[in-house]
Amino acid sequence: MSAGNALTPTLELAFDLISRRSVTPEDAGCQELMIQRLEAIGFTVERLRFGNVDNFWARRGTEAPVLGLAGHTDVVPTGPEAAWDHLPFEPCIAEDGMLYGRGAADMKGSLAAMVVACEQFVAEHPNHKGSIAFLITSDEEGPAVNGTVKVVEHLEARDEKMTWCIVGEPSSTNHTGDIIKNGRRGSLGCKLIVKGIQGHVAYPHLARNPIHQVSPALAELSAEHWDHGNDYFPATSFQISNINGGTGATNVIPGDVEVVFNFRFSTEQTPDMLKERTQAILDKHELEYDIHWTINGLPFLTEEGALVEACRQSIKEATGIDTELSTSGGTSDGRFIAPTGTQVVELGPCNATIHKVNEHVAAQDLNELTGIYQGILTRLLT
Amino acid sequence: MSAGNALTPTLELAFDLISRRSVTPEDAGCQELMIQRLEAIGFTVERLRFGNVDNFWARRGTEAPVLGLAGHTDVVPTGPEAAWDHLPFEPCIAEDGMLYGRGAADMKGSLAAMVVACEQFVAEHPNHKGSIAFLITSDEEGPAVNGTVKVVEHLEARDEKMTWCIVGEPSSTNHTGDIIKNGRRGSLGCKLIVKGIQGHVAYPHLARNPIHQVSPALAELSAEHWDHGNDYFPATSFQISNINGGTGATNVIPGDVEVVFNFRFSTEQTPDMLKERTQAILDKHELEYDIHWTINGLPFLTEEGALVEACRQSIKEATGIDTELSTSGGTSDGRFIAPTGTQVVELGPCNATIHKVNEHVAAQDLNELTGIYQGILTRLLT
Repeated sequence: MSAGNALTPTLELAFDLISRRSVTPEDAGCQELMIQRLEAIGFTVERLRFGNVDNFWARRGTEAPVLGLAGHTDVVPTGPEAAWDHLPFEPCIAEDGMLYGRGAADMKGSLAAMVVACEQFVAEHPNHKGSIAFLITSDEEGPAVNGTVKVVEHLEARDEKMTWCIVGEPSSTNHTGDIIKNGRRGSLGCKLIVKGIQGHVAYPHLARNPIHQVSPALAELSAEHWDHGNDYFPATSFQISNINGGTGATNVIPGDVEVVFNFRFSTEQTPDMLKERTQAILDKHELEYDIHWTINGLPFLTEEGALVEACRQSIKEATGIDTELSTSGGTSDGRFIAPTGTQVVELGPCNATIHKVNEHVAAQDLNELTGIYQGILTRLLT
Repeated sequence: MSAGNALTPTLELAFDLISRRSVTPEDAGCQELMIQRLEAIGFTVERLRFGNVDNFWARRGTEAPVLGLAGHTDVVPTGPEAAWDHLPFEPCIAEDGMLYGRGAADMKGSLAAMVVACEQFVAEHPNHKGSIAFLITSDEEGPAVNGTVKVVEHLEARDEKMTWCIVGEPSSTNHTGDIIKNGRRGSLGCKLIVKGIQGHVAYPHLARNPIHQVSPALAELSAEHWDHGNDYFPATSFQISNINGGTGATNVIPGDVEVVFNFRFSTEQTPDMLKERTQAILDKHELEYDIHWTINGLPFLTEEGALVEACRQSIKEATGIDTELSTSGGTSDGRFIAPTGTQVVELGPCNATIHKVNEHVAAQDLNELTGIYQGILTRLLT
């Protein structure tokens, strides 16, 4: 911490959270710290440990609509700490005004901003309408099996829903609030094993070369235009990540070849549509194959409406920025929340340094983020 | 050995040779056994050890033409001996009339037939015209670096040549002599590394997928008609033996992909012609690549002429079979001898069990093979 600068409540809490070595799936006390603060302002907290993962659900109020704030206390590993200019679990604000530490951007800074925004909002509006909720996990960066998805199932089982949900993932590019993610593409994985007949390269008439057979099919799949995307999503993309065939010997035609590929798909597609079109191409090439599909996440989209509008206005108010909607990039826990019918956006600080050494975020951005979250609470719940 | 059957001289010598554990590059005394027999009938023998490989060159006579008999005393490993019905280095003739043992077919049976054919021929024609020669190695099944190729270089250096050469490789399919190989295709190997740009599957615009790029090129190479072959050779064939690309992760576009392929090519092609056409296809697809070529063997062809005719007539005489000429199959040491201008054929017993457990050959076939070799000696050197 640089001397002489009093910390804001948001930065103080961010320091407290970053100091805890909560590498996935460890929570290291982060959640208890948040719970203490939330209980103090009238939240009812439900601790939900699944497997080795700590999660909690907290709610202030019993009425609809419910505005949820979602996020994770776990962080990715630091790599060799010696590679960091500032130790990753000893947060500090350097002379450049940046808050350094693992999780500063992804996403302990957002968690601190959420808690402080609620404290300030509740102080001003103790009798706000509807409810505020927190859905916090310590396994977003890992397998994500005992985290958000399990909490959502638990809520669904008793028919408890969020109307709106803000996920605090670092969505921004140059300044907090310049981009919000109002959707994410789906991810569909596939492992394809094309079968041939093994043999000697000198006797190809006694063999059937699966690499020869699959090549034109892969060429066609790679060249296929799956869709043109839509107003919210870029076109669906197909990428082969792995291909492996061969015994290692240079004179043997292999018996099979394995190809792993992935679709990132828009709301123009369903997994079934992509499977059907893929298999039609494979069948056209008369391949004999085994195929294994994995749905990693369905696409979701939150169209213009109360939540997006509240975000837009609050960002403009706190920062002067006209925010941009985007659905690009990877997946997040939003994929588990959106299918319940909740309107979901991701809104958090800049993501340039996430998962890297010297992760950092402008300290002032976290203060502005607190204002943004508070503005959204005010717009939707008063 | 089955009781009650007296062994012919060929089978006796075959037993002696098979009893020796001459797994490549070991000779285990096989060559000394042959040398003893050849010196006894007037051969001059030159022992030629290169590296860890025993070879010898033996010649009876000083005049042209020279009829060479070529072969190898080494055998491939047996695998677990328990898998054999008869121990691999304890030759026996079973009730089915088959001589069992490692090397029975590939090619100690042929070596025994060659030696005995010479003994019988020399006894009848002590003053034959021209010369008889033996070129024997103990590394045909291994790296083949210090074997036949080195002996040929040694002979070339003093301008000593064979006019004709019979390689005793097991060329036959159903009965000794039904097929002779009057040529072999060339073998050209290639390792191709196609380079892309690594990246995340969710951000393909920041990467360049080498698997996508290489697929249409491989499809085109696989579908290419390289030539139609000719009267002696089947069409040139192209086979991919190995393809490997990918980090193992399902969300990473790999930085490169490696493809290993092989041409078996006719005398319609040269390695340079194939390299040029391959690279033209790769360039048409605008690939960035490294490429490494290996010439494993050039094609050779012995057209109709004195040697083929002598083989044909001798086979007909000894077995009643009208032999068939073929250039199919793998490579042999003939690839090293033919380039010196020698007419080369491969003529030996059936190859159905070579390199397998329970390797065997019909005992009677080896006796007939002796007659065939003797017939060729008589036709060409009297």
